[in-house]
Amino acid sequence: MIKRARVAVVGVGNNTSALVQGIAFYRQTGSLAGINRATIDGLGVSDIDFVAAFATSAGKVGRDLTEAIFLPPNNFPRLDCDLPRADVPVTKGLVDAAEVDRVAGALAGAEVLLYSAPSGRTETARAYAEAALRAGVAFINTTSDPVARDPMWIERFQEAGLPLLGDDLASQFGTSVVHNALLRLLKERGLTLVSSYQVNLGGTEDFRNLVENPSTKEQSKLNALSAADKVQVAPLGYLSHLGSQKVAHLNVEAQGWGETAVSLDLKLKVHDPSGAAGVNIDLLRIAASALRNGQGGYPAQATPLFKSPPGTAI
Amino acid sequence: MIKRARVAVVGVGNNTSALVQGIAFYRQTGSLAGINRATIDGLGVSDIDFVAAFATSAGKVGRDLTEAIFLPPNNFPRLDCDLPRADVPVTKGLVDAAEVDRVAGALAGAEVLLYSAPSGRTETARAYAEAALRAGVAFINTTSDPVARDPMWIERFQEAGLPLLGDDLASQFGTSVVHNALLRLLKERGLTLVSSYQVNLGGTEDFRNLVENPSTKEQSKLNALSAADKVQVAPLGYLSHLGSQKVAHLNVEAQGWGETAVSLDLKLKVHDPSGAAGVNIDLLRIAASALRNGQGGYPAQATPLFKSPPGTAI
Amino acid sequence: MIKRARVAVVGVGNNTSALVQGIAFYRQTGSLAGINRATIDGLGVSDIDFVAAFATSAGKVGRDLTEAIFLPPNNFPRLDCDLPRADVPVTKGLVDAAEVDRVAGALAGAEVLLYSAPSGRTETARAYAEAALRAGVAFINTTSDPVARDPMWIERFQEAGLPLLGDDLASQFGTSVVHNALLRLLKERGLTLVSSYQVNLGGTEDFRNLVENPSTKEQSKLNALSAADKVQVAPLGYLSHLGSQKVAHLNVEAQGWGETAVSLDLKLKVHDPSGAAGVNIDLLRIAASALRNGQGGYPAQATPLFKSPPGTAI
Amino acid sequence: MIKRARVAVVGVGNNTSALVQGIAFYRQTGSLAGINRATIDGLGVSDIDFVAAFATSAGKVGRDLTEAIFLPPNNFPRLDCDLPRADVPVTKGLVDAAEVDRVAGALAGAEVLLYSAPSGRTETARAYAEAALRAGVAFINTTSDPVARDPMWIERFQEAGLPLLGDDLASQFGTSVVHNALLRLLKERGLTLVSSYQVNLGGTEDFRNLVENPSTKEQSKLNALSAADKVQVAPLGYLSHLGSQKVAHLNVEAQGWGETAVSLDLKLKVHDPSGAAGVNIDLLRIAASALRNGQGGYPAQATPLFKSPPGTAI
Repeated sequence: MIKRARVAVVGVGNNTSALVQGIAFYRQTGSLAGINRATIDGLGVSDIDFVAAFATSAGKVGRDLTEAIFLPPNNFPRLDCDLPRADVPVTKGLVDAAEVDRVAGALAGAEVLLYSAPSGRTETARAYAEAALRAGVAFINTTSDPVARDPMWIERFQEAGLPLLGDDLASQFGTSVVHNALLRLLKERGLTLVSSYQVNLGGTEDFRNLVENPSTKEQSKLNALSAADKVQVAPLGYLSHLGSQKVAHLNVEAQGWGETAVSLDLKLKVHDPSGAAGVNIDLLRIAASALRNGQGGYPAQATPLFKSPPGTAI
Repeated sequence: MIKRARVAVVGVGNNTSALVQGIAFYRQTGSLAGINRATIDGLGVSDIDFVAAFATSAGKVGRDLTEAIFLPPNNFPRLDCDLPRADVPVTKGLVDAAEVDRVAGALAGAEVLLYSAPSGRTETARAYAEAALRAGVAFINTTSDPVARDPMWIERFQEAGLPLLGDDLASQFGTSVVHNALLRLLKERGLTLVSSYQVNLGGTEDFRNLVENPSTKEQSKLNALSAADKVQVAPLGYLSHLGSQKVAHLNVEAQGWGETAVSLDLKLKVHDPSGAAGVNIDLLRIAASALRNGQGGYPAQATPLFKSPPGTAI
Repeated sequence: MIKRARVAVVGVGNNTSALVQGIAFYRQTGSLAGINRATIDGLGVSDIDFVAAFATSAGKVGRDLTEAIFLPPNNFPRLDCDLPRADVPVTKGLVDAAEVDRVAGALAGAEVLLYSAPSGRTETARAYAEAALRAGVAFINTTSDPVARDPMWIERFQEAGLPLLGDDLASQFGTSVVHNALLRLLKERGLTLVSSYQVNLGGTEDFRNLVENPSTKEQSKLNALSAADKVQVAPLGYLSHLGSQKVAHLNVEAQGWGETAVSLDLKLKVHDPSGAAGVNIDLLRIAASALRNGQGGYPAQATPLFKSPPGTAI
Repeated sequence: MIKRARVAVVGVGNNTSALVQGIAFYRQTGSLAGINRATIDGLGVSDIDFVAAFATSAGKVGRDLTEAIFLPPNNFPRLDCDLPRADVPVTKGLVDAAEVDRVAGALAGAEVLLYSAPSGRTETARAYAEAALRAGVAFINTTSDPVARDPMWIERFQEAGLPLLGDDLASQFGTSVVHNALLRLLKERGLTLVSSYQVNLGGTEDFRNLVENPSTKEQSKLNALSAADKVQVAPLGYLSHLGSQKVAHLNVEAQGWGETAVSLDLKLKVHDPSGAAGVNIDLLRIAASALRNGQGGYPAQATPLFKSPPGTAI
């Protein structure tokens, strides 16, 4: 019988809620629905044990991980399963670089550190990566802050024989995935794109932050869809009543034979945190497997799961 | 400069209207919009000359091809271009097998015979194929009647050094193409399909025939989408005011991580005859090129353009 | 405190399931959501007691009403509330007119008989009306079979001092309601309708019957929407996986100032049986109130709740 | 035969383009499509002559009105009709109050002044109203700047025997009209609103201004839809490729009987300037008729055509 992977997590937001609850859900129900890979190197989706958790919100620190994930502003729904206590009290997250050793100490016994905090705090992301290095733990950066795509960091992890995965998680099934698939299909079939738009609406705290502090980087990434300025992305809309659901409206106007009109309108509704957890579960197992097999540095298998893997611009 | 392909056509319905008008449109405008392949073996999309046309409707017989394509019940719109007379009077189509020689005679000078009549008259389709054989002309069967997937016919064309293409044209961009792309994407990303439906609405005479005489074959083909009974196809709806437009409503309900709900709703609007003409233009050039290069039998290149190519069940 | 209305029901399908469960739901939760009128003449939505139930399906006869409503082919979902036994065993429904007295006997103690069987059996509907007359009970006909719009029947109930309500229940919120509202809005604002369509998809047994035996009457009623042939109704589509949900796709194409295009696309998703129960709850209270106040014949108040009230064509 | 109304216009943007072209279109085609009222006090929709036009854009000043309406950033499409020269050169618009007399002089011969500039310049709007007063001309304020809802201005026009109409044109058919109709319908039928959202996308210069300088006033007006915080309005999205089209996506989630779910999704596509012109054509005729009948002040008939008629808050 396989030894479960021992995981520490930074950030106790909606994505962590979806991950922690989902693992319990699959363990209890035996369901395989919504899972991309049943096993990775022998590890099933419920072969994960949480051994440490870090958060900055005062309200969450000190609470058991399985309670903290339901505290506001988290609004990912309660899945339909029992959730036994993890007996993992949430620890105060790192505020300055002087605390790296404290964090490294708290990682004793962990195999993988999943960095799942909000994007935009590069120094913090790197401090946790440093702690992972010191503690001999694999590191996964799900934020857009450059860690794994910085050659210096890859080199350090490689030398230490530790896996480093990142940057910027690609959702299992989100607007970009669907929009790109439609645009690609159009092209394959020889149709000519006239115009296309995308509107994204969401109700999580992360979404609200993104709306209020639109990062040029995010925007430019969205715009990367753009084929010769034919694709436009409307501003994100924060609608609290959507909760952890994300709604996207897509439109594609094209021309077929004789320049006759072809039009496509699509509405997509997903739970954003599920899209993250569905990929995190694979990353955790890839990282644990690489660590156990003594493969340091970046595991190639992780590439399709990130928007900015090593080799992309910082 | 390349010699234009000389084409005869059976059936002067909407699909032929889209083909004839589109060729004139591209010749005049130089546009490349909506075209899958600019050239095939040197032949551009407007390197086609019509040299004969057959129809059964009394009203169309005797009229120039460029007039007949606008007669009712045809309702494909008039494209925005001049349409010079073809000087090809529509000839009375074949009614019984005794007329094969008459048709063969009328094919003098043609390189390709495009069979673009309604599906469901296998004997007629084969009589035209026979005429093509006698006249030394390549044959394209766009209907679901079994010709090219009957090994005996392939053999006869192969021996005669003539290309034979078919059966059952796959539209350039239709409901099946889009529905399949979405279902495939879902699977690739590891989501679990819960249910899906498809409704098709159209306003052409062909569509009305299909609604009134639903062929089991068509239905079973639609049902081929079905992944373990999860996909349902609603009955076709004939709505005259749609004209040559086809509208499809698709819905996909799925589960992501933790069995949370993912839903997709899509509306597609296309001109059905454009979808056919956009593929016919490739088939004509593949057939002419094969003929000119002395390749008899089935050209492998045509396979993705048919729903029932050789090797599929009759 | 008001005396609860004592109700007998004919037909133990989805609509009865929604009605019986909903009454228990509102009694237990105190919720007022989804209710059109909190009270009618003092009667709240949970002031209903079932005292008899008739069905023809062998499987349902003899079972308690609160169990029979969950038997196949019923597929209305289980509402989130406790459902105490009604202690009303389902009685074998009337098969021929000779049984009217048996039914009348079984109505002892009832104030209102709700006829909620499938449409299309006029003789049966009238036999139950006859039984109601003999038992001194108010009668509600929710089917399209002509009872209340037949002047002879109204006269008989009037003379007996008993209320008679019908025919053909108008749903609380269905496709027609929404489609008509949009077409009316268009007209009010001076836009010109170009074309409109409606497609209805459903997954109940009633829906399947309607698809397989399309009644000219139903179709003509749908077509009544038609403003000078501008509105087209596509054939109903039975999609089993929809369960008791109904999905409608509506499209409206119109012209505004300068004949510029205006288009509207709408998707509606409802539980059909809820739409029926939401109106039945008002009819029951109107009928009980009229009976208690000695008002025989047709209560004017019921008119907006039927598609074919007295005065409309038979 | 009726004497055509003589109209001066301030602002030569998309709305004026739609108005000027539409009048020519209806005159030429005799069509009545898209028109709310064929005649008002004998005046048909093409019984309008333009006698003066004011604009601030240097490029437009000096050009004939019928040319200036096609200059950028205007992007309302060219209607399918001839457009004879108006022989009305666009005059430089008023910049400061000292120019009121110049404008009043230019209004000689006009009966109505239509103020159709962008909202947000109250002093300018009032200066034009002053000029109308001095010239003895009726005044229509289509902007949200308070003129007609300021009692002092109504009084001045009343004393002068001149009509004053405003403020803030209500579109003939826009998002608010449709959204309100759906919410009202829900309420009428007794359903309970759970949540609703609205997203508006547009491609005109006006739209871009609104996106870049979101006026609290506009926002609060949109929010006026809000029934107890159940309705949320997403930020406006400027998508240049939409041109003068506006696209809105609406969603309504509600509860019916037993709190079962009801959902509505709607996409609306309109030409915004047509929605304005379709109302302006009525306002012009109401104003001309009132002037000719000697009715000064606010004509009650205009009330439903404005969002902020007299009596609403400033």
